[in-house]
Amino acid sequence: MKIGKLNHVGVATPSIEQSVALYRDVLGATKIGEKFAMPEQGVWVCFVDLPNSQIELIEPHGDNSPLKGFLEKNPAGGQHHVCFEVDDIIAARDDMAAKGATVLNNGQPRIGAHGTPVIFVHPKNMGGVLVELMETPKGAH
Amino acid sequence: MKIGKLNHVGVATPSIEQSVALYRDVLGATKIGEKFAMPEQGVWVCFVDLPNSQIELIEPHGDNSPLKGFLEKNPAGGQHHVCFEVDDIIAARDDMAAKGATVLNNGQPRIGAHGTPVIFVHPKNMGGVLVELMETPKGAH
Repeated sequence: MKIGKLNHVGVATPSIEQSVALYRDVLGATKIGEKFAMPEQGVWVCFVDLPNSQIELIEPHGDNSPLKGFLEKNPAGGQHHVCFEVDDIIAARDDMAAKGATVLNNGQPRIGAHGTPVIFVHPKNMGGVLVELMETPKGAH
Repeated sequence: MKIGKLNHVGVATPSIEQSVALYRDVLGATKIGEKFAMPEQGVWVCFVDLPNSQIELIEPHGDNSPLKGFLEKNPAGGQHHVCFEVDDIIAARDDMAAKGATVLNNGQPRIGAHGTPVIFVHPKNMGGVLVELMETPKGAH
């Protein structure tokens, strides 16, 4: 397995609206998408586009959001995960498992915010960083 | 002010050697630089190159490293900061200050790991994210 592009940095926030105002009005980001829900993952999502990568703003959606614990520890929000692209999510998942890493959701890929399958690898195996691996969208190269 | 590229994600680690092994042997990164010291900032630095951006591995250097507190809270390491490029660091610094953000080091830019001036903006004004702004190296576009 070989990681490719840094697709995005996931940034948890108690309020996507407030974070959009920060990235737009304070930091001057000019391309910011619409907020949308991913109920199965328990998050609202909004992408801030940068010339080479993205910030993925994520806010809890529903009562069982996996972000709740993170925001209890970090009420203002903060860096939540890093997402690298891979060519083949199944090959990546099997490689991670073979190397002893802990793939969340019992190793079952889900469809991510860009419409391609993703997995998450537990921070305990990744130097304290929650790592998302995302299959590169076809035709994206 | 307008942020440009996501230059890098800063990842704190208790051991750059261990993190290099992780990014190389587990995640399959193929372009990893040599570790070097930045004594004034109190860090060892090592860049993992991705096709569109970088991971900046940082390890404490010396007894007064600003990373010591972070690693006490996060012994395994973790995401420490996000670095965005800007055209002009003085204009960016003045704009941040005018907008009420707290620029560290009394607003005085320092020379960063890529040889251009950088500032850090306090997480309390940045949605819990420590933000580095870095002047784009000349000729990098």
